[in-house]
Amino acid sequence: MKFTINRNLFLDNLNNVMRAISSRATIPILSGIKVDLSNDEMVLTGSDTDISIEIKIPVSEDLTVESTGSIVLPARFFNEIVKKLPGKDLLFEVKEGMQTQISSENSEFTINGLDANNYPRLPEIDSETAFDISGKTFREIINETNFAVSTQESRPILTGVHFVFNSDKIKAVATDSHRLSQRTITLENGPQVETDLIIPGKSLVELSRIIGEQDPQVHVNPGENQVLFVIGNVSFYSRLLEGTYPDTDRLLPTTSSTQAEFDKSDLSQALDRVSLLTHAGRNNVVKLTLDTESGIAKLEGDSPEIGNVEERPMVKSLTGDKLEISFNPDYLKAALTASITDTVVINFTEPLRPFTVVPGKDDVEFIQLITPVRTY
Amino acid sequence: MKFTINRNLFLDNLNNVMRAISSRATIPILSGIKVDLSNDEMVLTGSDTDISIEIKIPVSEDLTVESTGSIVLPARFFNEIVKKLPGKDLLFEVKEGMQTQISSENSEFTINGLDANNYPRLPEIDSETAFDISGKTFREIINETNFAVSTQESRPILTGVHFVFNSDKIKAVATDSHRLSQRTITLENGPQVETDLIIPGKSLVELSRIIGEQDPQVHVNPGENQVLFVIGNVSFYSRLLEGTYPDTDRLLPTTSSTQAEFDKSDLSQALDRVSLLTHAGRNNVVKLTLDTESGIAKLEGDSPEIGNVEERPMVKSLTGDKLEISFNPDYLKAALTASITDTVVINFTEPLRPFTVVPGKDDVEFIQLITPVRTY
Repeated sequence: MKFTINRNLFLDNLNNVMRAISSRATIPILSGIKVDLSNDEMVLTGSDTDISIEIKIPVSEDLTVESTGSIVLPARFFNEIVKKLPGKDLLFEVKEGMQTQISSENSEFTINGLDANNYPRLPEIDSETAFDISGKTFREIINETNFAVSTQESRPILTGVHFVFNSDKIKAVATDSHRLSQRTITLENGPQVETDLIIPGKSLVELSRIIGEQDPQVHVNPGENQVLFVIGNVSFYSRLLEGTYPDTDRLLPTTSSTQAEFDKSDLSQALDRVSLLTHAGRNNVVKLTLDTESGIAKLEGDSPEIGNVEERPMVKSLTGDKLEISFNPDYLKAALTASITDTVVINFTEPLRPFTVVPGKDDVEFIQLITPVRTY
Repeated sequence: MKFTINRNLFLDNLNNVMRAISSRATIPILSGIKVDLSNDEMVLTGSDTDISIEIKIPVSEDLTVESTGSIVLPARFFNEIVKKLPGKDLLFEVKEGMQTQISSENSEFTINGLDANNYPRLPEIDSETAFDISGKTFREIINETNFAVSTQESRPILTGVHFVFNSDKIKAVATDSHRLSQRTITLENGPQVETDLIIPGKSLVELSRIIGEQDPQVHVNPGENQVLFVIGNVSFYSRLLEGTYPDTDRLLPTTSSTQAEFDKSDLSQALDRVSLLTHAGRNNVVKLTLDTESGIAKLEGDSPEIGNVEERPMVKSLTGDKLEISFNPDYLKAALTASITDTVVINFTEPLRPFTVVPGKDDVEFIQLITPVRTY
């Protein structure tokens, strides 16, 4: 195998493949990147078994092939070397014993490669039930739900986001059993058959980065226990979580006895300040008092060692019954960060029942649920 | 004690006092900042016993005093609270039991203070032997030497930079016994009597940050076992290292048998690349071959697991005997980073004798010494 490639072209694609490389690879060959070169294209593959990424770079004036072949190179070093080489173009040549020479200007590395025949094969997924969605929409719904997945392996199914794709909408829900986030966005050309996928949160983080800030088309190809996303020249494979996702619809309260509308950024800053003390204390709990008669909302937090704090966030409207409720300020802060409207409405029923956070605008289908904390 | 202060004014000064606060304070009261308020000024004090910082803020329209007094407040929280408070001005009031109320707009913190009478006193240093130097010069000489101090406590004296101030120059030297950096800069109005100070490297890091990017006048006030630097409204006290600094002049070779001049940035980048492999191997060593006949310099490094690398950095001139020498690439890299000229000249004697790195310009008095590594 011998080829010349433009350094920047190579680096951009390597950086994407690196998203699948784990620093704690259990199978040694998976700490490497596989490079397959034919006369038409180069295929780069990286995998940590949960996620696999395959990228195709077509032969062009930036990639010229002298002879074809395959090799696996140590991912982290390979990437660092390409990043630091001096020239515009790099020359690669695999020599005897899988020794791979990488040279550019006055610099020459010789790296021990591994046999590409020992690299695991990626799953084959047939494309009968494939469909396309907007990258921007997909990234948005990931950002609005993925933060709420569980990080505990005790209930593995909760470490993923539950997506239901329909012809005209996507619904996504995530919960760690203390809080929940559910978002529905309309789709133009969703799948004809309802498609139900539970995708691990960690896969979604990397997928969202590969989608990037633009709006590329994302081709979704669901398989038995894997799903394949194709975005431009990148194929992203993720393991699916198996099992039945809990029925979260029944958790959402349908009535409320106290309603408060807040300015999102004002409330968020007040929570930040209260957290300075609650994070220092033993139990990270803030008390919210809503005095519907005077129209005043009060947030209180303390740390026995440091002191206490009282905040009066702006209230845009406050109706219903007087209420005192205690909760983890981090959950409300995260809910506000995920919110996409300038104001949010919080609906309460009782001090020990979950409350909901919804947008201050009716046309956004987004509901978050937070479980309060019993303080006595 | 009760006062109102402009948040930004307070924050800028708190950030400077924070440089003296250790996260692992051994005496509990030193995890706090002392606030002393008279009718004329506020004095903020922080200390970790090695470094103490005292800042004076005069009463003005940005600092109005209602009643005077003293209190010690928990530094880290205090700073975070001031940073996150919403308003332009902050109102402070010390209430019963040293409870300190800090309020701004709709936010009100009550923080447990400590008795300022228990705060240690700063040393008194008489100003007989004081002198002034340029902040820019002082920061420069710190940057050029301080990186070479020892981080090992086995020879405490080597954890400081040895300064000799004269009426017309400063000479500073630091060494960790593997490498040495010595810089001399001319002064306009140095002390009349030669002044010899060994200042801990950690103090110099913080002092350099307080001097900042401008060129403030630095008033140097040497005491028995402390030195006081006054920069604007900041008084910076540092412990001095006691004992006799080794005679480093005798270490500097006076002859050389091989001389090579390199472009600093080209050589630095080549070392970066070689280090990718040497850092991965067991012994972090690079081999430099200088072929004075062909005029070629070659740097080689390897890691048995990953592979090997060969670099041919540009040589501006190469004279004297052929040479092969091995050394830690990090020491040469650090020497180049500290260098202030575009080219450097490296002078060698023998493969097992230290070599010097000097500027490519004659008028800069800067010499660095690096000890090679025996590889057989």
